[in-house]
Amino acid sequence: MAVPPSTYPRRLLPLFLGLFQGALLLFFALFITYDQPSAQAEDTNLVANQVYSTFPFFQDIQVMLVVGLGLLLTFLPRYGFSGLTHNFLLLNFSTQWALVLQGLLHHFHHGQIHLDLHKLLISEFAAVTVLISVGAILGRASPCQLLVMATCEIPLYLASEWVIVTCLGVLDVGGTITIHVFSCYFGLGVSKALFKAAQQPLHPKETPTTSSDLMSLVGTLILWVFWPSFVAVLCQPGDAQHRAILNTLLAMSASAITTVVASSLLERDGKLSPGHLQNGSLAGGVAIGVVADMAVPPVAALALGSLSAVACVLGFRFLTPLLARKLTLHDQCGIHNLHGLPGILGAAASVVAVLVAPKDPSGSQPSQLSPAGGNASEVVEGHWGGRGVGGQALCQAAGLAVAAGASLLAGLLTGAALRLPCLARPPERLCFDDSLYFKIQDQAESPGLDSSAEEGALALKEQI
Amino acid sequence: MAVPPSTYPRRLLPLFLGLFQGALLLFFALFITYDQPSAQAEDTNLVANQVYSTFPFFQDIQVMLVVGLGLLLTFLPRYGFSGLTHNFLLLNFSTQWALVLQGLLHHFHHGQIHLDLHKLLISEFAAVTVLISVGAILGRASPCQLLVMATCEIPLYLASEWVIVTCLGVLDVGGTITIHVFSCYFGLGVSKALFKAAQQPLHPKETPTTSSDLMSLVGTLILWVFWPSFVAVLCQPGDAQHRAILNTLLAMSASAITTVVASSLLERDGKLSPGHLQNGSLAGGVAIGVVADMAVPPVAALALGSLSAVACVLGFRFLTPLLARKLTLHDQCGIHNLHGLPGILGAAASVVAVLVAPKDPSGSQPSQLSPAGGNASEVVEGHWGGRGVGGQALCQAAGLAVAAGASLLAGLLTGAALRLPCLARPPERLCFDDSLYFKIQDQAESPGLDSSAEEGALALKEQI
Amino acid sequence: MAVPPSTYPRRLLPLFLGLFQGALLLFFALFITYDQPSAQAEDTNLVANQVYSTFPFFQDIQVMLVVGLGLLLTFLPRYGFSGLTHNFLLLNFSTQWALVLQGLLHHFHHGQIHLDLHKLLISEFAAVTVLISVGAILGRASPCQLLVMATCEIPLYLASEWVIVTCLGVLDVGGTITIHVFSCYFGLGVSKALFKAAQQPLHPKETPTTSSDLMSLVGTLILWVFWPSFVAVLCQPGDAQHRAILNTLLAMSASAITTVVASSLLERDGKLSPGHLQNGSLAGGVAIGVVADMAVPPVAALALGSLSAVACVLGFRFLTPLLARKLTLHDQCGIHNLHGLPGILGAAASVVAVLVAPKDPSGSQPSQLSPAGGNASEVVEGHWGGRGVGGQALCQAAGLAVAAGASLLAGLLTGAALRLPCLARPPERLCFDDSLYFKIQDQAESPGLDSSAEEGALALKEQI
Repeated sequence: MAVPPSTYPRRLLPLFLGLFQGALLLFFALFITYDQPSAQAEDTNLVANQVYSTFPFFQDIQVMLVVGLGLLLTFLPRYGFSGLTHNFLLLNFSTQWALVLQGLLHHFHHGQIHLDLHKLLISEFAAVTVLISVGAILGRASPCQLLVMATCEIPLYLASEWVIVTCLGVLDVGGTITIHVFSCYFGLGVSKALFKAAQQPLHPKETPTTSSDLMSLVGTLILWVFWPSFVAVLCQPGDAQHRAILNTLLAMSASAITTVVASSLLERDGKLSPGHLQNGSLAGGVAIGVVADMAVPPVAALALGSLSAVACVLGFRFLTPLLARKLTLHDQCGIHNLHGLPGILGAAASVVAVLVAPKDPSGSQPSQLSPAGGNASEVVEGHWGGRGVGGQALCQAAGLAVAAGASLLAGLLTGAALRLPCLARPPERLCFDDSLYFKIQDQAESPGLDSSAEEGALALKEQI
Repeated sequence: MAVPPSTYPRRLLPLFLGLFQGALLLFFALFITYDQPSAQAEDTNLVANQVYSTFPFFQDIQVMLVVGLGLLLTFLPRYGFSGLTHNFLLLNFSTQWALVLQGLLHHFHHGQIHLDLHKLLISEFAAVTVLISVGAILGRASPCQLLVMATCEIPLYLASEWVIVTCLGVLDVGGTITIHVFSCYFGLGVSKALFKAAQQPLHPKETPTTSSDLMSLVGTLILWVFWPSFVAVLCQPGDAQHRAILNTLLAMSASAITTVVASSLLERDGKLSPGHLQNGSLAGGVAIGVVADMAVPPVAALALGSLSAVACVLGFRFLTPLLARKLTLHDQCGIHNLHGLPGILGAAASVVAVLVAPKDPSGSQPSQLSPAGGNASEVVEGHWGGRGVGGQALCQAAGLAVAAGASLLAGLLTGAALRLPCLARPPERLCFDDSLYFKIQDQAESPGLDSSAEEGALALKEQI
Repeated sequence: MAVPPSTYPRRLLPLFLGLFQGALLLFFALFITYDQPSAQAEDTNLVANQVYSTFPFFQDIQVMLVVGLGLLLTFLPRYGFSGLTHNFLLLNFSTQWALVLQGLLHHFHHGQIHLDLHKLLISEFAAVTVLISVGAILGRASPCQLLVMATCEIPLYLASEWVIVTCLGVLDVGGTITIHVFSCYFGLGVSKALFKAAQQPLHPKETPTTSSDLMSLVGTLILWVFWPSFVAVLCQPGDAQHRAILNTLLAMSASAITTVVASSLLERDGKLSPGHLQNGSLAGGVAIGVVADMAVPPVAALALGSLSAVACVLGFRFLTPLLARKLTLHDQCGIHNLHGLPGILGAAASVVAVLVAPKDPSGSQPSQLSPAGGNASEVVEGHWGGRGVGGQALCQAAGLAVAAGASLLAGLLTGAALRLPCLARPPERLCFDDSLYFKIQDQAESPGLDSSAEEGALALKEQI
């Protein structure tokens, strides 16, 4: 089936990206520089040690976002190339855009910006929100729509993160509230406003095949393996980071087992659903982020991992169909089950963790490097010290409310903007199809045999 | 082909896993805690450095076990999803179960257990034995059977490892004897007792396809790349660890080339067998583990890698069919060729290495952190000092005998237990099929075209 | 289609490799040893720190070469297994061969060779040239031809690298000139001499399918993620290494976006070409290598990444067809677009970077560990100091000329040697087919259904 070239404004995408690259070059030329190399040997050693302590974590996170998350999105059998490529494109665009915005903010306060690995990492964290939100509308939105969405989401994320972490003093080392909850409700808002009241019928190309499910599961496993690096990279080195790694490992291990239990119990014939496995195994990692470096006992990490897996599987089984029916809310990848519900659970757990934390602040309080770049532990301790345990617990809850509420609203507005006709939402019959965006074989896997079989049948037909 | 729901007791798996998760939570709540955060800055630095020196190795091993080994098992074309998922499930279950058992042992001696990355790593090493043993019965056993097997194997492994390393003082930093040989003969014992005298006919779904062979080879390559981390993670930092990494790299490189030579010579038309490549390339890594940190020259690592690859390929070509015919011993993945024969070769090499080692103990003796948790080097040196070179060589041989003999016996008993009807071994015609355990498309890769071709043919038939 | 066994001299490959392995063992037994373990604790700490600072980079590079590059070559739908395996085989063979040659050279100067991780890494860098050059003739050459090519290329690379780095004092920390440009023109020379004036028609098995393109893209993404490790591993620890990592990240991010822009603008219907994405995204990494640790501003890294992506995409669109038509030059993987054009751009950028570098040498001059093993920064500073900025710029240009000219000539000679009939170039109709070298299912992906559809059609035919 050849897609008529006229159905899609082909020049918008390169125009948009090209202009952005030009602006980026200009901005970098004007404002961004590297640190002056240090003259002393001690400073050199310090920089070397910082590289050795951060870079392996950074590479793990790159693998997660580029390969793991990309493969996870290949569950749509004829949209795998698009899933992988759009994820890669959005990661790069959003990271660059976040670099620009954070640089601008910083510039007005401190002048010239000195780029380092930590600033890149923070921008990549901002980009993660886009990659998650996309899951709600995967396959039914054009690349232009996705880029416009990223353009809107990054500044909104930075604002929300500033309110939640800097103003409210919320503790969230793994981004459970600031990243996962925010991006989930932003994505749902976009989906609601973009598709409005239209019930999305099941598209014939939407059903995964064995091989697309397998690739997607490989993506899940890559994410599962490297998740501890994502949670722990911004922790204070030493005990807090060690604890964050262990808590994440425990939570994810409990999630993996509990997902099998829950998925198996929910289906009448006891068979496991690939979708449950692909998402539920990761739910514990989403939930644990906010309490990973707090003084929680190991059993709490296990329990939180189990609970969030149960929530995720129940969400897929009951909540997603319900939302689709009652609110005509479309959530293609089930981001509400993987990021929303476990995120809320994690935020609730952080309230409890703060309330029951031992009083002595020296040993029990988490210390973290704030994503905003500095070492926030002193500020945080001051805050907490000032406002007391109850105040901090209230702040955690307020952070959750801000993340969910503001992002939903922002998502609805963004989604309305995505309805602009020039952004070229693909018509329903062309959705979920790589061939709309890529010069690839429209045929499926094995042209040799398939076509011979087909041609054989056709030839036969002609004979008859 | 719809599998009737009645053929399989669907509630057993979630019941078993659910109860286990509950017990795990209880155990963790009662006995497991984290270290108290250190107050001094020096201690914090120490913990931070331990994390930086262990965590990259740990992540490498996680990639090996979750992604590499999982993909290696996808060579069965219609059982790939099961291979990947069951491997993942068993890794998590066995690690948790090993944590519990080691915690209990530790608890009775020292009270409260302080969890750290090293203890998790040791439990994961125990879980590896289960993942290897499963290879003997892959595709013909139900998940319940696999879980029961894991339940039995972990305590038996811990006991055997205690006898071999602690009592006999066997040096085995890479787990050649304690992990590979043990799990191989355990798996063969299970297979023998489970399938008894029944000759297993070739199942139509057993033959790999090009694409399943390709995925499996990717798994091999991932294992190949990260194997040095597995061997070296428990070595004494410094020279011993450096040497262990280099020896493993050399052995695996020699294995890769020699596998091509051996496979090509064995087939009449000189074509390479994918199965040989997938396994032979890794044989050197299995064999080198036991001598990796000893004072062996580089040429010995190369020679051991070559020899074990030859043994592995010859095993696939001659021994596996022979065992199947004479002993009706079924070995689905050929674990005897990848883990048994190279393991025995490695153990023999360690006897030689001990005998010809230079006398001066300061430079030549390997030093390793014992998997039991402490620094065993002093104990070992004491032992070796006490018993002399000949005594140590004898101990290495005795360790091999214990690992092979005890595990075979234990495997036979475990296999007999797996014949319990309630564990629901799948009937032969439903073996090697994902659709028995997962809600996936029963169709193959490309539903769109295939079905259209098929339907075309059918429609045509009707017309005629 | 069964390949007749007589078409291929099956015994040559194992004979060649077997003899080589034997010679390798002999060489290692005679000349290669490990460092004596250090007695002092400080030395042990030093070795441990060297391992911790190099090993993660080393593992990243192994993943790139074994998994990433291997998967990138699977874009040929029926040659994926061969692409992956031949890449793996050549990596091992070439690394071992480079170890031998470097060892011999070293031996005549210093006696016994002490193997360490750094020497292995240097040999692996030499092997990369072979893996790149192979891309020009992938699918149309036999494994024996590839091995002979590797045998010739490694010593030629070592000689060219000695001229470029040691004699000319060219700065090239990421191997842009010494590795990428050299191997590109070597590969093109081989291709020209091997296929002579024969226009290579489009082979029916040459066209990628959706799934082979997807696997290949996964390979690209793995290479993309780990590329910074490849560029930065030989940098001086500290600021230079930090800057090299950042520059590479920026260049590759710009490449990714610019590739989408360029590919989309070039096609009439605005669709993206998978081949452009698979290669263009990496072009920035090739180009940045030579200037990565120099005192270039961040905007230069971005601009270089964008430019090289444009050059790469334009190369695919216009230059490759032109070269094929005018010069009957066959370039299967488009290595000239990925390694040649960006390499030349990078070399040009290094001339500019040297010319505009600030005068104060303490802060601005790059410092690198030369691939030859020692710390070359002092030598280099001496050279540069001696010859001045203009002289160094001239040297960079001369290095490019040597790399391109000498390698083209050497490639032509090597390609002529590959025409020896005993090396068994496969006949055209058997090209691009795994089944010539591997015992695999000649059928495509899904035997169950496909064959049933085919058989159905056949059965039907017979009925009629």
